[in-house]
Amino acid sequence: MTRPRGVVVVTGSELVRGERTDRNGPFLAGELLRLGIEPARIQIVGDDPAELEAALREGLGADLCAVSGGLGPTHDDRTVELLARATGRELAVGAALEAEIEAVSRRVAERLRRPYADFAEGVRKQATLPAGAEVVGIAGTAPALVLEAEDTVFVVLPGPPSELRRLWPQALETSPVRAVLARAHEPERRVLRFYGASESAVARALAEAGGEAPGLAATVCARDFEIHVDLVFEAEASSAADRLGTGLRKRLGEYLFAEDERAVEELVLAACLKRGLSLATAESCTGGLVAARLTSVPGSSDVFRGGVVAYADDVKRAELGVSEELLARHGAVSAEVAAAMAAGARARLDADVAVAVTGIAGPGGGTPEKPVGLVYLHAEGTDGSASRELNLPGDRSAIRGRATAAALHVVRTLLAQS
Amino acid sequence: MTRPRGVVVVTGSELVRGERTDRNGPFLAGELLRLGIEPARIQIVGDDPAELEAALREGLGADLCAVSGGLGPTHDDRTVELLARATGRELAVGAALEAEIEAVSRRVAERLRRPYADFAEGVRKQATLPAGAEVVGIAGTAPALVLEAEDTVFVVLPGPPSELRRLWPQALETSPVRAVLARAHEPERRVLRFYGASESAVARALAEAGGEAPGLAATVCARDFEIHVDLVFEAEASSAADRLGTGLRKRLGEYLFAEDERAVEELVLAACLKRGLSLATAESCTGGLVAARLTSVPGSSDVFRGGVVAYADDVKRAELGVSEELLARHGAVSAEVAAAMAAGARARLDADVAVAVTGIAGPGGGTPEKPVGLVYLHAEGTDGSASRELNLPGDRSAIRGRATAAALHVVRTLLAQS
Repeated sequence: MTRPRGVVVVTGSELVRGERTDRNGPFLAGELLRLGIEPARIQIVGDDPAELEAALREGLGADLCAVSGGLGPTHDDRTVELLARATGRELAVGAALEAEIEAVSRRVAERLRRPYADFAEGVRKQATLPAGAEVVGIAGTAPALVLEAEDTVFVVLPGPPSELRRLWPQALETSPVRAVLARAHEPERRVLRFYGASESAVARALAEAGGEAPGLAATVCARDFEIHVDLVFEAEASSAADRLGTGLRKRLGEYLFAEDERAVEELVLAACLKRGLSLATAESCTGGLVAARLTSVPGSSDVFRGGVVAYADDVKRAELGVSEELLARHGAVSAEVAAAMAAGARARLDADVAVAVTGIAGPGGGTPEKPVGLVYLHAEGTDGSASRELNLPGDRSAIRGRATAAALHVVRTLLAQS
Repeated sequence: MTRPRGVVVVTGSELVRGERTDRNGPFLAGELLRLGIEPARIQIVGDDPAELEAALREGLGADLCAVSGGLGPTHDDRTVELLARATGRELAVGAALEAEIEAVSRRVAERLRRPYADFAEGVRKQATLPAGAEVVGIAGTAPALVLEAEDTVFVVLPGPPSELRRLWPQALETSPVRAVLARAHEPERRVLRFYGASESAVARALAEAGGEAPGLAATVCARDFEIHVDLVFEAEASSAADRLGTGLRKRLGEYLFAEDERAVEELVLAACLKRGLSLATAESCTGGLVAARLTSVPGSSDVFRGGVVAYADDVKRAELGVSEELLARHGAVSAEVAAAMAAGARARLDADVAVAVTGIAGPGGGTPEKPVGLVYLHAEGTDGSASRELNLPGDRSAIRGRATAAALHVVRTLLAQS
């Protein structure tokens, strides 16, 4: 049984030029997947009419085509006009819609002390729709639409991510979209996450365990320091998926650390919470990223007490109690200082567990003995410690990101041991 | 004069499913733009052969098609095979390439204590190329390629962003790509960045200042809390661009803060460095994000001393000297506590300037008096202070991200005042 095919079209000059990273494509693709529609492609185009029209025409081959952006009042917002052209529909002003947008615009005009006449043209433009389109809701003055054309249902949403996310559930309630969802069926999914094994070792174990089977797709992918095996399968392939899971657990059990999608920071916080432990951080080269990832999780304040970003050496001394002698003898980037930072964070922030990072993120600051990418990690708990030395490739941003992930895994390992 | 048309094709199941955000598309699009090639679309597909082949066929319409991913040794890495099919080329093993990949694989086999036979099939696969392809370089065991087909030059690069970025400059040196670049011509670009003005106010000022002109494209876009006006123009439209810039400066001068692309954290660090000031942070709800953005800049250690992430109230007391009485009277989320945190960070971390953030990022913790999204910012320097109260919309991640940007702008404003 094949799933309905979904396509996402995202429009925005700054997105196609790489000046900003698109967030709507991944959101909409993830939603399609969740609903049992296969996300086949995400297409990003600018406001060039020929490119956008071509992308919308290609959307006609899909069961559902979700479109983001190009609904504003200005001249370069052309999604509605081009959707009408791609689907061969007439454009017309919706009277009720125009009244609704006019009301919003009059309030804005009043607040800004501008004559409404300045807005009238934009209102008319935003109230113009292809024949047969259904208005799903309004964000500011931009209407979200659903349009059935040939065998495709188009869902057209405003570009600002918060507005798109607010209106998407309303689009799912319309009858054209409900009809697509009735043909959809959600695949089963399973993930096995490994830490410390190489991608090729995991790929080999996957092949040895039997590999893919009819109705079972297996993807190996590296993310941060983790290797994920994603199994996506139809119900009839569930015993094949079970066999594959068992084979991977047997071969790579020592590296397997999770079989769900929770980020490592969530696993760390959950392990602390379960055991009634509080947590603190001490960071040099990661500059707050470890604390930022931990506090990205709602409810992290139940576990996380705080952290010190000790960039200057005398901040390491004053705020974390790292001794001048230790710094002079081993240097700020050393296993000894990482351990002292973790001990200091536990004591100063009154936490049960602390993790420390010190390293050289580059591009400057490296020496032959201590090159860019050298990072020391140390986690200390109530009944033990764990530490690691890393030599990371990549630029400053890559080194910081990977050191952050590794720091979280060091705490996770410590909590799993004890 | 039209520029060569560029298309980016990115392949990866986890990318088209929205499980991971693509970084290669924006990078490659930005590079094309920089080189004077118009990035017309970024297409993301999974490892479904039909979708990937169709995307590569569409690439044939472009002058340059940059392709990322699908070059690994495993069965679902199909870019080379499908590129051969899309361009009608035969596949053949390259003997010299095979020897090179074999040498790398033998070292890996030795390190992992595995027989080389386990790798032989993958080596043969990765050494197989479409007729006429030129090898640009190797990342691990994955070769990057350039292939001229019909009127299109394909540049095929490995998916891991660091490897892609390393091999891209080498691809630019090949003669097929150099031939495209000879037809390219870089547009002139100018950016005006505003803080504190709404997107519609900026759009209106842009229209009043004359708007777009032949050869001059103007894009208004909101990023973080900033509104950017991007002017992209041909040399012959430079006086029109000048007029537009002058008109915007006249109308929105109080909000204009930058005419280059440097991130606000870079502007803050540069302003500190110029005046010989050191900087520290004190964060509650942003949990280290302000420090992380500041330390993302190479050389930030010349200015940034460190920060305290004070999540628990007693960490605010112990590490930042916020008094128990102040916390009890005003609550941790208050203008008074933000000011005390900034003062504490200046004193404890021995910094000239400090910025503090306290707020409610949600989803829990809000009350009718202090709802989710309420954030207080305070920056204190040697000769003055600046503060702000924000009521931010959005989810936890949006609130934290926007509060972080606003905190950096508060320091920037303080440094600009004094």
